[in-house]
Amino acid sequence: MSELVLIEPDAYGTKGVVGLTLNRPDAFNALSEAMLEALERALQDIADSDARVVVLAGAGRAFCAGHDIKEMRAEPALDYYRALFARCSHMMLTLQRMPQPVIARVHGIAAAAGCQLVAMCDLAVASSDARFAVSGVNLGLFCATPGVALSRNVSRKAAFEMLMTGEFIDAVTARERGLVNRVAAPDALDDAVRSLAATIAAKPREAVAAGKGLFYRQLESGIEDAYALASETMACNMMEDATLEGTQAFVEKRPPRWD
Amino acid sequence: MSELVLIEPDAYGTKGVVGLTLNRPDAFNALSEAMLEALERALQDIADSDARVVVLAGAGRAFCAGHDIKEMRAEPALDYYRALFARCSHMMLTLQRMPQPVIARVHGIAAAAGCQLVAMCDLAVASSDARFAVSGVNLGLFCATPGVALSRNVSRKAAFEMLMTGEFIDAVTARERGLVNRVAAPDALDDAVRSLAATIAAKPREAVAAGKGLFYRQLESGIEDAYALASETMACNMMEDATLEGTQAFVEKRPPRWD
Amino acid sequence: MSELVLIEPDAYGTKGVVGLTLNRPDAFNALSEAMLEALERALQDIADSDARVVVLAGAGRAFCAGHDIKEMRAEPALDYYRALFARCSHMMLTLQRMPQPVIARVHGIAAAAGCQLVAMCDLAVASSDARFAVSGVNLGLFCATPGVALSRNVSRKAAFEMLMTGEFIDAVTARERGLVNRVAAPDALDDAVRSLAATIAAKPREAVAAGKGLFYRQLESGIEDAYALASETMACNMMEDATLEGTQAFVEKRPPRWD
Repeated sequence: MSELVLIEPDAYGTKGVVGLTLNRPDAFNALSEAMLEALERALQDIADSDARVVVLAGAGRAFCAGHDIKEMRAEPALDYYRALFARCSHMMLTLQRMPQPVIARVHGIAAAAGCQLVAMCDLAVASSDARFAVSGVNLGLFCATPGVALSRNVSRKAAFEMLMTGEFIDAVTARERGLVNRVAAPDALDDAVRSLAATIAAKPREAVAAGKGLFYRQLESGIEDAYALASETMACNMMEDATLEGTQAFVEKRPPRWD
Repeated sequence: MSELVLIEPDAYGTKGVVGLTLNRPDAFNALSEAMLEALERALQDIADSDARVVVLAGAGRAFCAGHDIKEMRAEPALDYYRALFARCSHMMLTLQRMPQPVIARVHGIAAAAGCQLVAMCDLAVASSDARFAVSGVNLGLFCATPGVALSRNVSRKAAFEMLMTGEFIDAVTARERGLVNRVAAPDALDDAVRSLAATIAAKPREAVAAGKGLFYRQLESGIEDAYALASETMACNMMEDATLEGTQAFVEKRPPRWD
Repeated sequence: MSELVLIEPDAYGTKGVVGLTLNRPDAFNALSEAMLEALERALQDIADSDARVVVLAGAGRAFCAGHDIKEMRAEPALDYYRALFARCSHMMLTLQRMPQPVIARVHGIAAAAGCQLVAMCDLAVASSDARFAVSGVNLGLFCATPGVALSRNVSRKAAFEMLMTGEFIDAVTARERGLVNRVAAPDALDDAVRSLAATIAAKPREAVAAGKGLFYRQLESGIEDAYALASETMACNMMEDATLEGTQAFVEKRPPRWD
């Protein structure tokens, strides 16, 4: 039996970049219960590792089509659904809370919880042929949890439209609205991902980890509290060895000597 | 005496779509006290009906020019103004709290509280000749309550600029900034509105109503609470008859049988 | 010894517009401790004056390159850094809390805390050759406090990308993302600034001051509280002499007689 998720250290030929690939290509990488569990475990393992950047991708023709509707529909029960969405939401929050930036590498379809995955990733690079939807409403199932992530990426009316119509948007529209950072031709997608991942992997680990944590915490605070949190983060960051070296190198107009 | 607001069931030739039209064309549909009251009552009546989608439009040459300045200016008194803006704000919140999505159909001018109406609607389709402003500052009256709605639609600096300069923006700019979803040529406006309204009217009512309520509630929560709210909404939504049918139809690769 | 900040009343040939210029051109206007103190004092003095609009600019080849890294690096100590970032954050909040709108006039480079200054200004006009970055991560110092401001101007993923890559964006990109309002050719920059400043300087002072205060307060409130705050602001604003005259002039279809 093949693995539900594939983990590749030093992916994209770059030390510190972990490739994490959803591997149910025949099911468009649908997020079955087993897949959610495998993904949660993989993210936690990477969180505790010395990886610097994660690239989340999908095997086969699509990034991710969302939940596994067949499995979900088999035995309807309110408590089962509560547990399912709680598990899924927990995995999404694990992704945001881990110290490493996560880049979504999106091709083909990113639908429903697949679109949510893109929105929850810190960064996203899309193939120009990628398409995005929160399409549950077409089955009578409003994409409530995907909407949490989507509405924190794109403007209110744009999110509402996608959630209520279930319609797809293309990659350029997704970039214009803030759902993805960069769009590349299909055969240039891996280069675009590598470039972004390698840029971040070259930064000092402590600054990146402290910065990611602070970024989401301060977003949920009023501006005065946000500044208090950020000032403390920045003062502590300044005392790190890598930062003392980086700033000293700047003063001496030389490249920093980081391992 | 003609009605201040016109209500048309099954508007745009589509069952379940209610047309709600501001009908003071000679006053550019200014929001007099009577108009605010008529609008509040109409929205509450529609909320309690089996309508699925509302299209809010203006009769005559403009969508809405805002408050009725002549009426407002007649007998200045702080308590009168407090009551007036409280009534107006209540109507705006009624619009957001009703279970049906409300689409603004905007042509001509949407100014001050008229621009606020557009911003408070869940969705907006604009004629390419529509223009938008929060222009109260030109009379010395900062558009404070319109600013609440506008600043939740467009970016901070764009909202601040509109509020402080009072200048108009055109429909394409409004779309780029997030204030409207779609722009159509004047003679294609009704088709564009019909298409969006009909798309949403075809979705199961329960999913749409639960989705709209959740959407605004979760936006005001931190992400962890937002996910808890959304997970509960989605679990309950999954148990609806329409959703069980919609998901079963998906599994069986057939169209859902919804009434 | 030359002044660290230059203050010019009635700048841009416009009464009520104060020019405030960072004046360490040889250091790209770096925010040394002395500069932070001078800026804080200047902003507080202007706040208490009868100025109507502030234009914040930089002398020489750049708007502002951020903190003074050489000074910061000289004697590393956690408490020193805490005090430094607290002082800087306080100045940034003073800028947002003063009653006058502040327009950033950006040319050349706006980096790290210089980019933060642009983001904290209420409005920004950029030369087409201006470039923006939060580049501290390149030295191992994540731009935590600049990120507070940046992430309240641009979308989440765009802010995260700038913070983690340290890369520059150009002026048109900055405008598209919401970091600046307007872009002008270098030789048209002062005209663009003058036009925006003069437009706002012509509005009644009370409306502008009450409006700016309300704008940021309501952004940090849920929508129901935001409407309560805004309704009270608007009712009080309506009773001002300038507003009673402005609205009466509107009713009489004549220009307002404001001093």
